Amino acid sequence: MKAFVYHGPNQMSLDDVPNPKILKPTDAIVKVTTSTICGTDKHIRHGGMPEVEPGRVIGHEFCGEVVETGAGVNKFKVGDKVAVSCVTQCMECYYCKRGEYSHCEDGSWIFGYKIDGCQADYVRVPYADTGMYLVPAGLTDEDVLFVGDILSTGYFGAENGNIQSGDTVAVFGSGPVGMCAMATARLWGPARIVAVDIDQSRLDFAIKQGWADYGLNPNNVDVTQALKDMTNGRGADVTIEANGFEPTFKAAIDGVKAGGTVSLIGVFEKPQILDMKNLWIKNITIKMGLVNANHISGLIDLIKEGKLNMKPLITHTLPLSQVAEGYDIFEQRRDNAIKVVLKGDVK
Amino acid sequence: MKAFVYHGPNQMSLDDVPNPKILKPTDAIVKVTTSTICGTDKHIRHGGMPEVEPGRVIGHEFCGEVVETGAGVNKFKVGDKVAVSCVTQCMECYYCKRGEYSHCEDGSWIFGYKIDGCQADYVRVPYADTGMYLVPAGLTDEDVLFVGDILSTGYFGAENGNIQSGDTVAVFGSGPVGMCAMATARLWGPARIVAVDIDQSRLDFAIKQGWADYGLNPNNVDVTQALKDMTNGRGADVTIEANGFEPTFKAAIDGVKAGGTVSLIGVFEKPQILDMKNLWIKNITIKMGLVNANHISGLIDLIKEGKLNMKPLITHTLPLSQVAEGYDIFEQRRDNAIKVVLKGDVK
Amino acid sequence: MKAFVYHGPNQMSLDDVPNPKILKPTDAIVKVTTSTICGTDKHIRHGGMPEVEPGRVIGHEFCGEVVETGAGVNKFKVGDKVAVSCVTQCMECYYCKRGEYSHCEDGSWIFGYKIDGCQADYVRVPYADTGMYLVPAGLTDEDVLFVGDILSTGYFGAENGNIQSGDTVAVFGSGPVGMCAMATARLWGPARIVAVDIDQSRLDFAIKQGWADYGLNPNNVDVTQALKDMTNGRGADVTIEANGFEPTFKAAIDGVKAGGTVSLIGVFEKPQILDMKNLWIKNITIKMGLVNANHISGLIDLIKEGKLNMKPLITHTLPLSQVAEGYDIFEQRRDNAIKVVLKGDVK
Amino acid sequence: MKAFVYHGPNQMSLDDVPNPKILKPTDAIVKVTTSTICGTDKHIRHGGMPEVEPGRVIGHEFCGEVVETGAGVNKFKVGDKVAVSCVTQCMECYYCKRGEYSHCEDGSWIFGYKIDGCQADYVRVPYADTGMYLVPAGLTDEDVLFVGDILSTGYFGAENGNIQSGDTVAVFGSGPVGMCAMATARLWGPARIVAVDIDQSRLDFAIKQGWADYGLNPNNVDVTQALKDMTNGRGADVTIEANGFEPTFKAAIDGVKAGGTVSLIGVFEKPQILDMKNLWIKNITIKMGLVNANHISGLIDLIKEGKLNMKPLITHTLPLSQVAEGYDIFEQRRDNAIKVVLKGDVK
Repeated sequence: MKAFVYHGPNQMSLDDVPNPKILKPTDAIVKVTTSTICGTDKHIRHGGMPEVEPGRVIGHEFCGEVVETGAGVNKFKVGDKVAVSCVTQCMECYYCKRGEYSHCEDGSWIFGYKIDGCQADYVRVPYADTGMYLVPAGLTDEDVLFVGDILSTGYFGAENGNIQSGDTVAVFGSGPVGMCAMATARLWGPARIVAVDIDQSRLDFAIKQGWADYGLNPNNVDVTQALKDMTNGRGADVTIEANGFEPTFKAAIDGVKAGGTVSLIGVFEKPQILDMKNLWIKNITIKMGLVNANHISGLIDLIKEGKLNMKPLITHTLPLSQVAEGYDIFEQRRDNAIKVVLKGDVK
Repeated sequence: MKAFVYHGPNQMSLDDVPNPKILKPTDAIVKVTTSTICGTDKHIRHGGMPEVEPGRVIGHEFCGEVVETGAGVNKFKVGDKVAVSCVTQCMECYYCKRGEYSHCEDGSWIFGYKIDGCQADYVRVPYADTGMYLVPAGLTDEDVLFVGDILSTGYFGAENGNIQSGDTVAVFGSGPVGMCAMATARLWGPARIVAVDIDQSRLDFAIKQGWADYGLNPNNVDVTQALKDMTNGRGADVTIEANGFEPTFKAAIDGVKAGGTVSLIGVFEKPQILDMKNLWIKNITIKMGLVNANHISGLIDLIKEGKLNMKPLITHTLPLSQVAEGYDIFEQRRDNAIKVVLKGDVK
Repeated sequence: MKAFVYHGPNQMSLDDVPNPKILKPTDAIVKVTTSTICGTDKHIRHGGMPEVEPGRVIGHEFCGEVVETGAGVNKFKVGDKVAVSCVTQCMECYYCKRGEYSHCEDGSWIFGYKIDGCQADYVRVPYADTGMYLVPAGLTDEDVLFVGDILSTGYFGAENGNIQSGDTVAVFGSGPVGMCAMATARLWGPARIVAVDIDQSRLDFAIKQGWADYGLNPNNVDVTQALKDMTNGRGADVTIEANGFEPTFKAAIDGVKAGGTVSLIGVFEKPQILDMKNLWIKNITIKMGLVNANHISGLIDLIKEGKLNMKPLITHTLPLSQVAEGYDIFEQRRDNAIKVVLKGDVK
Repeated sequence: MKAFVYHGPNQMSLDDVPNPKILKPTDAIVKVTTSTICGTDKHIRHGGMPEVEPGRVIGHEFCGEVVETGAGVNKFKVGDKVAVSCVTQCMECYYCKRGEYSHCEDGSWIFGYKIDGCQADYVRVPYADTGMYLVPAGLTDEDVLFVGDILSTGYFGAENGNIQSGDTVAVFGSGPVGMCAMATARLWGPARIVAVDIDQSRLDFAIKQGWADYGLNPNNVDVTQALKDMTNGRGADVTIEANGFEPTFKAAIDGVKAGGTVSLIGVFEKPQILDMKNLWIKNITIKMGLVNANHISGLIDLIKEGKLNMKPLITHTLPLSQVAEGYDIFEQRRDNAIKVVLKGDVK
């Protein structure tokens, strides 16, 4: 089959590789009908995650069709159309019993990282019964495509924010994950969602889609002060960092009110400084982490009922055969690219 | 001044009575600019609440303008336009310290019940600093009128339901409080809100306003089964009873899934039967109670930002001088009356 | 092998039956080294649970040694000493993913009820990986015997009570489950735990063991008033009903403060009346249900560290060959019997 | 009257100053019968808090007797014996309504900092109705002395840890606040409480008092590894930092499990580094802040019932006239001093 393979930093190619096989009774083989290129894939491409071994098939956000099931797969059958969680969960370990799948002792995020991923014709899905979700009749791959990663990650960031109805929520970073955080933050009934980014077009886009109510561009305004002005001088009730860099880390800490919550979902490459001299007295909560992807059923139900629609994130769609070009479009933000989707070539 | 006074069962009249006076330093006197007739007032009118003493001025949901403040009132001044909580809170007792204002040892619901109420030209507001809320610039009385009672009560019912995003919520009873419960249930991001009532026009109205997604009329369908059909056979995640009678009590219990929550906000006059033989194993939570009205600031903020709009409930507006007719319209549901509003006559 | 078999109301006998076999790869076969007679078994014996089919081996609370494992059992091996949950959990269904194992679609409480149980030489344990727990080195069967049912049930009742540190907790019913509720209620730091029972010797026993701080005997005192006297006139913060009858149901409702929680863990055979005329305004929460047994690891850890010790409940120990006499002792409360334990005969 | 007055860095003296007077109707004047020297007082003494103005009377942890009440004080009368919260709360501002008294807009921690404190014969207590607590009959000042600050602070640290029953809790720093955190952590039913300190005598003391189960001395063991060894390799469920320096900050972050909580109650003078490269994926929660002191009633009730006893912390008791010597004893840890108590001289 065709698969996009990592051979080392800046060396990825669409190769012919053997089809995946069932390795354990709880595995399924899925024909990939739709997949995406994710920000993390970009890091891998450039060697930013050296733990990825050469020969690895990349990709972890996808929908597909079940073509084979192991003897221990009880809930799916050949022909089922499924969305797949990027987080593999064994359901037997300490963490899985607690719903903390991101620390599953035989899973967590492994697709396109520690095992072969979905930028391929076929992919092996471990623990298929708990990692796959039926695409409801009437919905397309594109409707539910993001539940497996970025929509769940945005939701995780919003959930960690402990948003109360009537709150002011500021999201720092208006990339795909940040916009998913905005859209799902709405599920907790805040009075206002504030997008913060230096890319004005993305602020405008987020507001136009109804994901954000206000946009703040740090190039134009003092964000901390602007948040205080919206909140009787207190600051945002909740800040969500979806960027992973120092300026937004600092801004998320500075912008939150005393007693508020800072939810970090950006992927950081460097240590950050916490100004404890002033913070010890500020009574804030800081949460962080890799997504547990434990609310996918609920997200699919919300999509089905028209309460969430993330399809506008898809700016480009290409066949898997053009995956390399897809990476270029995505990285260069060509034509305001937000999310690049790959369609399977196998009929 | 003019005031609508209870003289005994079915004996209420618009009388000339002395103006209210400051009794304690924490009191304020408010000129009532807008008030409502509430379902509870109807009960009082017919003698259903014998603890109400003859001579009592009725009414507890209102907006007005501050005309006098006691020496201990720090946060308001003459001329301030305010919405007032129906629940008086001393902020010093055991319950107030816990935010459970409905059991305030020197307050709780007392307006138009144990002390004189708001269907009058003026009203005395005890503990004014914590019971009054500024009407934000740009908003009218009607915008925020219901925060003092029915919107807070609906919110309380929804909050008690412990709604999770993606849930199915069924609200039994589509009166003003039921519709407030639907509108505020939306603040927790359910996938679907289901209105249940035998009055089809109210179901249609709730759906048209966007408060409910579906309507179920027990005269036409088996509600329990319909809820199961929407939820893979489980039943609603949350049911909210906003009626106070046996059939809806039973339906709310029957309609909830194993592990779900039943939130009771109806005012019951009779005992109800709990089928413990089947329920002990069903793992449900039942919550009930008088509203704490502890989220009024948040509700006002949501209204200000356009996230909540309950004005469509107002079907009739009359001057206070026609209050008696207002009661008739409300009780007879004349012209599909939902909520009858009284405008103050004093300029 | 030997097994205690239900043949119909009041017809149970120790029979020779075939040994259990692995039916699914996730099964294990366990040699029962220690088991108990539970209150539910008593109900079954007398025909109170007609859904139990004749031929069924009874019993659901036990420890044992693994003698065979299916191909899909990953976490246990032959020779492991285990305590077993009375609640079977598939870990793949809607309820298991939520930790609500009592409603597992392929499990829940089934031992000695819908499948053969543990009053036998051997028992088949479905979903062994998630239903079994290693007995830590240094602990005996008796140390951890009750984690599989009554200790988890008592814990569940205490957990549902939402106890806050400093609270007053009243437990109605001082049987084995009630005493487990008292002992585990302590884990939430209440100021006082009050045992309520008409059996004075059990009150004295609970206090002597340090599980309760006070005992109230309804034959001697007005329990509702006594609870108010302890709590500045408010009533208990939390009441736990561990009996299943009308007087204790009513007392648990009457004895709780406004805003408090009533946790029902008694098994009820009859409907109960909820006095909604007075309760709608009392702001209480009522919780009920079959145990989820989702905290067994934590309970074992507490036992290991000496923080919980339920062994004093064991008043009688007999070999399995005398199981019938064990039932008589238990039902007649002979010699103040609390809990009757059966030791396996197979070496 | 006599009072211990700050005149500048390292210049404090017991002076004759005017008696405090009622300034607002909600004030009370309290004769100080028992007070303490707190770690913060030490900082002030040496000029570490330059915002303290010369002339300020120091001290904020105390019990006393009411000698005068303002007209707006409703719950106390002359002669009442009271313990007083170090956190003044107006009960009307945004933060007080949320129970976050540490950010009260007209209060927070002000005693001996922004207003005159308790190392004096008399002290003025603002908002007396909500800041004072009756000492229950039968208890002494010493029994409840610490509820006003360090016991509440320790409790706050434990509460922020979100401890679940069966957890492993590690407390870094075995000073008075750290030991209060240990003692109150017990209220959430952990399986084990681990004290960490380089002062072996304090570890031994904490274990002897039953506040900790284990002691770890970083001079002797690798604390992170030792915590993993206790928890199947995961790390502590909860770590509490009660020291305020870099090594314990880092150890508290390193010692917590994936998915665990780090509760910071130390007072930090310097920024700290958060290793986000590794932490973003660790799913931890970090909480911090100044105590809200919102659970004093519960703590007093626990003391009354014998469930908490912090009196062993009192190693030295002197009359107020020897306050300067008290500071020396405290700072030099003379004779293993833990907590130095000052008794009022006025009869």
